[in-house]
Amino acid sequence: MPLVVQKYGGTSVGDADRIRNVARRVVATLEAGNQVAVVVSAMSGETNQLVALAREVGGEAPSAREYDVLVSTGEQKTIALLSMAIHQLGHEARSFTGAQMGMLTDGDHSRARIQSIDTEALRRVLERGEVAVIAGFQGTDEEGNITTLGRGGSDTSAMAVACALEADVCEIYTDVDGVFTTDPNVVAGAHKLERVSYEEMLELASLGAKVLQIRSVKFAMHYGIPIHVRSSFHDGEGTWVVREEDVMERLVVSGVTYNRNEAKVRVLGVKDSPGVAATLFGPLSASGIVVDMIVQNLSQDGTTDMTFTVPRDQYAQALALMEEKAPAVGALRVEGDQDIAKVSVVGLGMKDHAGVAARMFEVLAAEGINIQLITTSEIKISVVIEEKYAELAVRALHSAFVEQGAAEPQAET
Amino acid sequence: MPLVVQKYGGTSVGDADRIRNVARRVVATLEAGNQVAVVVSAMSGETNQLVALAREVGGEAPSAREYDVLVSTGEQKTIALLSMAIHQLGHEARSFTGAQMGMLTDGDHSRARIQSIDTEALRRVLERGEVAVIAGFQGTDEEGNITTLGRGGSDTSAMAVACALEADVCEIYTDVDGVFTTDPNVVAGAHKLERVSYEEMLELASLGAKVLQIRSVKFAMHYGIPIHVRSSFHDGEGTWVVREEDVMERLVVSGVTYNRNEAKVRVLGVKDSPGVAATLFGPLSASGIVVDMIVQNLSQDGTTDMTFTVPRDQYAQALALMEEKAPAVGALRVEGDQDIAKVSVVGLGMKDHAGVAARMFEVLAAEGINIQLITTSEIKISVVIEEKYAELAVRALHSAFVEQGAAEPQAET
Repeated sequence: MPLVVQKYGGTSVGDADRIRNVARRVVATLEAGNQVAVVVSAMSGETNQLVALAREVGGEAPSAREYDVLVSTGEQKTIALLSMAIHQLGHEARSFTGAQMGMLTDGDHSRARIQSIDTEALRRVLERGEVAVIAGFQGTDEEGNITTLGRGGSDTSAMAVACALEADVCEIYTDVDGVFTTDPNVVAGAHKLERVSYEEMLELASLGAKVLQIRSVKFAMHYGIPIHVRSSFHDGEGTWVVREEDVMERLVVSGVTYNRNEAKVRVLGVKDSPGVAATLFGPLSASGIVVDMIVQNLSQDGTTDMTFTVPRDQYAQALALMEEKAPAVGALRVEGDQDIAKVSVVGLGMKDHAGVAARMFEVLAAEGINIQLITTSEIKISVVIEEKYAELAVRALHSAFVEQGAAEPQAET
Repeated sequence: MPLVVQKYGGTSVGDADRIRNVARRVVATLEAGNQVAVVVSAMSGETNQLVALAREVGGEAPSAREYDVLVSTGEQKTIALLSMAIHQLGHEARSFTGAQMGMLTDGDHSRARIQSIDTEALRRVLERGEVAVIAGFQGTDEEGNITTLGRGGSDTSAMAVACALEADVCEIYTDVDGVFTTDPNVVAGAHKLERVSYEEMLELASLGAKVLQIRSVKFAMHYGIPIHVRSSFHDGEGTWVVREEDVMERLVVSGVTYNRNEAKVRVLGVKDSPGVAATLFGPLSASGIVVDMIVQNLSQDGTTDMTFTVPRDQYAQALALMEEKAPAVGALRVEGDQDIAKVSVVGLGMKDHAGVAARMFEVLAAEGINIQLITTSEIKISVVIEEKYAELAVRALHSAFVEQGAAEPQAET
């Protein structure tokens, strides 16, 4: 009998009606002849309320251990309510907290990593034809302390459960129809992808597509569990995330993403000698600043310019740190710019299809958009441009690669 | 080093400010040189919200197992927040859910009985000078299912923890100053008792004093743990509940209580033969109707009248049942009356002080109050009267026995 793991986010279980709706969907899957394990988040708004309470009572840095004890109550509420709703539809269901399902993690509170899952109790319930209703986001460490996986951790929980149970599919229910070629709010021609590879999904997620947590995609990729990202509001197919060899049509470009939440820092006239990068990036890392792109150019006079991007809310801190460290690397000065956007094209087909970068630069040039930085990977090209051109760039690239370009790879490969 | 167990109810931890207030009190007790274990309820209002959600999703009779999973989140929130608040005052604290503290119960969900407590983890924390912050009201059964002890169960949890740790005192913090001689809203001269025996407290609690759960008093009595009922709003002494031999001044009457939440049912002209009582009270018990007083009088013609009281909300059901069973015991007819009140005087000194009953009847007669039923125990006399005289009776009895009578026992003993 096929085993389906379903994950419902906070919006899908946001109130009593929606919980009943999820119960109906779970029961339909069960009645279609599947074993069903369901992983749920806290009801939307709940976690924010709990976090606000923690701040109010525990100050800016409440105890990490107690913070996890507090916020884990959110998912515990949902599992009890969803189990009740399933009972109301005449089926058996049994809830599992992180501790009860043997979700063992390390002791790194609020961002714990899953170490193992004891699937025995889950399997017993599933084999009796009951629904296992599992609290996402939480586990316990070896000493029995409650831990949480960090925000969005319910995706990771679902994927870990799917892998441990060797599920046939992990369905991620969300408030969109699937993974889109780009943001439909920006480009009218954006359309849902039927299939993407894990690798493409990783690039799309990390670039801001926000449908799936990166960690959960890595899990599924490692164990080869197919993911089905679909809408919790209707029964239509969503997007399947599968192994590269299972993606039938290898699109040159499967998606165009953008991120306007970064800022750029440039350190000019740095001595070109060993250890310079470490001197600059060591302190950034120590301060918890997440550096995204890094570009270094050698100039003619033997000095170099070091440019990188950081999340906009860490920009001021990064700039101050660089100004402090600049003298140590002989830098002339430090510049920064917040009015930037990063635009990327992602596609498996790039691997064996030259000319994508050149085409991308042409398209942007035709719109009069200047490129400030460029980075590339095997299946992605990203550029930094002036922020005000973000939508224009996305529309132009989507039009060139996705709307017109869909037929091209077949012609050229 | 003395070990103090403190219990704070829902009102005492009702918001962030009150939780901080509790933290200050806990820390003061710690800094005075005690080991401190704190048992807390859910924030006031929280449990009602959760119960409403359960009804909305799970209908009238939601799964008992899942109900406990749901409502136990209330106390879990409080333990995390109180621990954070104690940290903010510079002390260490560690929260314990029912499962984490090894509170083993039977599997009778929503009214589980405590079987044992594994005190090892608690003792380790206390011996390090940290505060153990314990979720009241909850435990786990042998299979790891979450259970709850029923409403008011936090008192029972506190007392069970105090007994298991052999605490020097169990302090119950509440929104009143202690146990009063009678309801201060009815009698201006009501005053706080300094000490009462467990036995008196049991009678006072069961008669509606509502300060302490009966089960928790029984626990403390069995293990001989002193209880200190006191206000969470100031530092003044409250009422100590102790062993009979530790009550220095054995008052003839320590308190006057009343209950207007009962109704009276009378079955007239019953055959006076074996098995009659069983025929009448068996069906009541089977229907979950809690009978309080039972009085039977033999009349001259060999028949008898059977009168009893039940909670007012079970009155209609009880009356209907009696009308159904009346023919089987040859009864002439069934009567009922909801407009009654039960008034009781309670006191250890009654044991060796005759004449309390006679005096009580005199006092009531002097006010023109007719007595409908009388029952007595070693340390309590209860009468049923017409409801409209309830306050008058309480005032008269309090005046005669508590205000004027305080000196009497010494004179007569």
